[in-house]
Order: sequence, then structure tokens, then C-alpha cells
Amino acid sequence: MGIRALALAGVPDQHAQTQIDLLLEAELCDRPSHGLLRLPRIIERIHNGVADPVTEGVATWRSEAFLQVDGRRGLGPVVAGPALAAIAERARRTGIAVAAIANNNHLGMLGWYVERIAAKGQTAIAITTSEALVHPWGGRKAMLGTNPIAIGVPAAPHPLVLDMATSRVAMGKIYDHAQRGTPIPADWALDANGEPTTDPDAATHGAISPFGGAKGYALGLALEVLVTSLTGAALGTDVVGTLDSDRPCNKGDVFIVVDPVSSAVGPSISAYLDAVRACPPSRPGSPVLVPGEGSLLRRAERLATGIPVTEELWSEICTLAKAPPARRAANG
Amino acid sequence: MGIRALALAGVPDQHAQTQIDLLLEAELCDRPSHGLLRLPRIIERIHNGVADPVTEGVATWRSEAFLQVDGRRGLGPVVAGPALAAIAERARRTGIAVAAIANNNHLGMLGWYVERIAAKGQTAIAITTSEALVHPWGGRKAMLGTNPIAIGVPAAPHPLVLDMATSRVAMGKIYDHAQRGTPIPADWALDANGEPTTDPDAATHGAISPFGGAKGYALGLALEVLVTSLTGAALGTDVVGTLDSDRPCNKGDVFIVVDPVSSAVGPSISAYLDAVRACPPSRPGSPVLVPGEGSLLRRAERLATGIPVTEELWSEICTLAKAPPARRAANG
Repeated sequence: MGIRALALAGVPDQHAQTQIDLLLEAELCDRPSHGLLRLPRIIERIHNGVADPVTEGVATWRSEAFLQVDGRRGLGPVVAGPALAAIAERARRTGIAVAAIANNNHLGMLGWYVERIAAKGQTAIAITTSEALVHPWGGRKAMLGTNPIAIGVPAAPHPLVLDMATSRVAMGKIYDHAQRGTPIPADWALDANGEPTTDPDAATHGAISPFGGAKGYALGLALEVLVTSLTGAALGTDVVGTLDSDRPCNKGDVFIVVDPVSSAVGPSISAYLDAVRACPPSRPGSPVLVPGEGSLLRRAERLATGIPVTEELWSEICTLAKAPPARRAANG
Repeated sequence: MGIRALALAGVPDQHAQTQIDLLLEAELCDRPSHGLLRLPRIIERIHNGVADPVTEGVATWRSEAFLQVDGRRGLGPVVAGPALAAIAERARRTGIAVAAIANNNHLGMLGWYVERIAAKGQTAIAITTSEALVHPWGGRKAMLGTNPIAIGVPAAPHPLVLDMATSRVAMGKIYDHAQRGTPIPADWALDANGEPTTDPDAATHGAISPFGGAKGYALGLALEVLVTSLTGAALGTDVVGTLDSDRPCNKGDVFIVVDPVSSAVGPSISAYLDAVRACPPSRPGSPVLVPGEGSLLRRAERLATGIPVTEELWSEICTLAKAPPARRAANG
């Protein structure tokens, strides 16, 4: 149904498969804010001319290990996929390579990218920026993106995959509370005046807190400027196009792939991760998890039981699979 | 006095200058755990044969942009300095380059390294591991290093420098509380049984908490295995030599240097950082700081007023400047 909706919007079949695979994986891993919820927005963006359904962007080797990519408003994973594949191949020769992508649409769940590289034996880092939703530590206004970082490292039985935003929570979680009418914890967000709030509606007009206090803020800010130094992307409140439907997306994406020093390190990393899993737990019966494994557990459950999708979202997708969105009619 | 103490331990003059500069900069930036406190330990390690005062290590280009370094038990900054300079030069041609260092002594304050690269116009990332002091989120035992990360990005009037451990606090701060007999906050550490404690003595036999809860733990663990995947370094409780005086140091260090996409990005990054500084503060009179600026403020103060050093430490350094430590006599 999702693929049909994308096809109707002019997305070639293979690109639609990639985009839907990414959204479904996010649903399976219980990251609904990066899941099917995004599909109507993607289609609206195509119809509004700020997402190009066909292009894979234009990639240029700026130097031997630095791939500079103009995304040409392509779909996030459609542009990022070939760029990532190119630097992974290049890193086998040069040891390390970077792709710096500008003018690309939302990447979706970052872990999806690094997991695929790590599963093939290379270590990967992914960083992307977003519209300003997070306040500086000690400040009252949203001035930073949620600036997630993902790290994938080869290991058995599956790669280690870190995938985390530098915000305290996803804005999606705050919307969740707003919909259900339940208060949010006092350390999640500020209201429009920059005061801490437990009212989710007030928080959506304010700013999310950085995770981990001053350190999380510092990390998020460092990632924001690091991405811009490599991509030339917009910064802070100038960033648009990751949440709206009608503005070209001007954030940046950075991928780094490195070849491990030897194949001998894989087993020691796997053994260490096993030791961490076996660490005596604080709460009996709640074993220590390695990053990414909470998602894997939920993925296994959901592969068996299915993905929870609201009727509202499903009917919206079904409608989009039958006809393009209203706005196109208005424009056309 | 410090240089004389190092000279007496067999450290060539230029290496001693480098090592002392790094320790003094840490003191100036109010990071005493990475300051002069380390000097007697460094000298003991030289006398015990687990730190080589002369070598710069052996660096090999494993591939065009991957410098593999066997530190040969050299002094942290003495080995890392030339490696970092080599990848910075290489990155000007290849766009990005990495140095993966094993068998090297303690690096000291990571920000010192990336600041120097960023001041010359390149973006740098530094990651190093350490002995296991931090417990996994939801676990009772120390199984991760404090695994700091530093990021330096060119900006005016000075580069942005992030330098943070992934632990809640430095073990040095817990020792501070123990010395002063004051309790520690309840979320800093666990005791030897893995229960939260406010007793600093109990905490020194337990584990420090990761910063930022589950996310900080995930980041610290990802950095630990990332470093090992590139250096082959030891992991978790197998890591030794960053705190003791007599075991070869088997942690790993990773530096990545990237050339910015264009010189045009510098001014936009500087303007953005100015906007962040001008963010309305939560507490009137406490302006928002950009990472590294707290250190810079203290540095300016201390350049004027001097560095606070305990009489005990100073007299220890003065003694070491007159004669090598006792243990050498025992061995010699």
C-alpha cells in the first residue's frame, strides 16, 4: 500500500522499496516517529516540489576519501544509500572515507544505515542534523537540532548498533502525551517562555531538553557544527524541511566508514559484549542490554505480531495509494 | 621543576616540554585529574619500564588514509602528537584520515589535541578508552572505561572544543569528596555491591555511573568497541595501565581529521555560536556557554592568578626533580 502510494507520487519502484523498507524497519524497532507516520509527509513533499522522487543526487569525489554529495532534494535513503555504498567500497582501499551530504531529505532511522555497513564487516558513524527543537543547557529557546548519532561496529551474533538523538526525548513522544492527555516528566521540555513544563501541549510550543544535561547539550552542539563544517548545511533555527511539507530541506548528513584494523578484533568485541550482557543486573530479571538490543527484541516481537498502526494513519496511506494529495490538485 | 623531574627520568627535553605543556593546560582549564597530579605517576611508570621516555612509537600507513601506530609504550602526547600531525597533513590531500594508536600511555586532556587541529582550520575527533570505571546502565559492576570524546571545529574567535568523558563525573571528583569528607550526590556512583551510594569512599570501590542514563551508557560502550575495532586495544576490565604504575597500557586512541568542505563555512559557524551565546538564559546573569568556554574562562583567570597545587603534590614533584623515585633504587 505504501509502495503504491509512493509510485502514484512518481517514485520509481526500487526507490519506493528502499523508502518503505526503512520506514517499516523503524516501525519494527518501535521508533514510530521515524516510521509510517512519515509517509504522508514524504508524499506531500514530493507533490510540493521539495522532494524529488527520482534523483539519487550528484556525488563528487572532492578528494580521494571525501565524497561530497548534492542531494538535489532527493529522498533521504535514496540519496544516502549509494553514497554510503561508495565510501564503504573506497574505505576498503583508503582505510577511511567520508560522505558529506547536503540538500537531501530526511534520512529516517540512522541505525538502519550503520547496521548494514557493520553487518558487512566495517565500522560506521552517521550523524545528521534537524530543525531546532532542543534548547542549549541554561538557555530558554530551541536552537539545536535533535542531532542524532549512530555508530555500528561489527560483532557476533549481530553488529553493535548505537542510534540515539542528543535530545532528552523525541518530539514524537511529547505529541503522544499530548494526544493521550497525560503530563510529561518535568525534565523533558520547556514551554514557550523557556520555563520547565509538564504540559505536553505547552512543550510542543517550547523546546525539548538535551539528554544528559550540559554534556548532552555540548555533544549535540558539537555534532551540529561538525556536520556543517563538512556539508555547509544550515544551522540552528535556519534549518527547515525536516518537519514541514513545503520547504527545501537544508540540514546536513555525514557518514564515515572505517576498515577495522584486523579481522581478529571481531571475536574479542563479541566476547566483551557477552560479558557486558552478563553483568549482574541492578534489578533481578532485567538483564543489562547492549545498545540496539532493545530494538531487536521489539523487532522480533513485531515480526510475529505485526506493527501497530493507527486507523487514521492507515486510512490516510490507503487514500494516498488511490489518489495524490489534495494540495497537488490545488497546484495542478 | 616538572621538566627537570622528567629530564631526570630520562625524557628528552622536547618530549618533556610537550608532556608538561599538556599537564599545565589541564591545570589552567581546571581539569586537575588530567594535570600535574599525573606527573609522579608518569615518572613512576618510566622507572618501572612501562613507559618509554624516548620513543615516538612506530607509525605505518596501513592504507592511504589509515595510520596505524604502535606506541611502543611511549608517553601519550609524545606518540600522539606526530601521528596527529601526519593525519592532518594527509587529510589535506585525501579529505579525511584516521590514526589508530595502540600500546600508548595516557593521552591526558583530549581537548588539547583537537583544539590544535581546529585552530589550523581542520575538524578533528579524538576518542580514547580507559580502565573500567563505569557500570552499564542497569548493571552493578564497572565494565566500561570513562571513554571520553573530543570534537574540535574551526570557528572564530576560537575553535569550538567539546571534551567530555561519558562517565557522570571523573573519578578524581569522587576522590576529592573522599578527601574532604563530603558526601557525593546519589546519582554519581554505585558501591562495591552495585547499590547507589553517597559515600565517596564506598564509591571508589564501586563504579561511576554513565552520564545521561541509558543513552550515555550506550554512547560510552559504542566508543569503547569502536576504538577496539580500529586499534585492537583491550576491552572493559582487561584494560590496564591508565591508573596504575606498573602495567603496560593496553587501551586504544583514535584520531580522525577531516578537511572542511569550504572556508565559507567558518563564518556561518561562528555566527551560529554567537546566536547560541545570546540565547535568553534560564537564570538571568548566567549566559549560555558554548562547549569549551567554561574552560577558557577559568584558563584566563588562572593565567592571571596561578594554578592551585597542593603542597603535598608540589613537594613530591620537587623531590622527583632532585632524585628518581625510590622504586628505581629498589630495581637498580
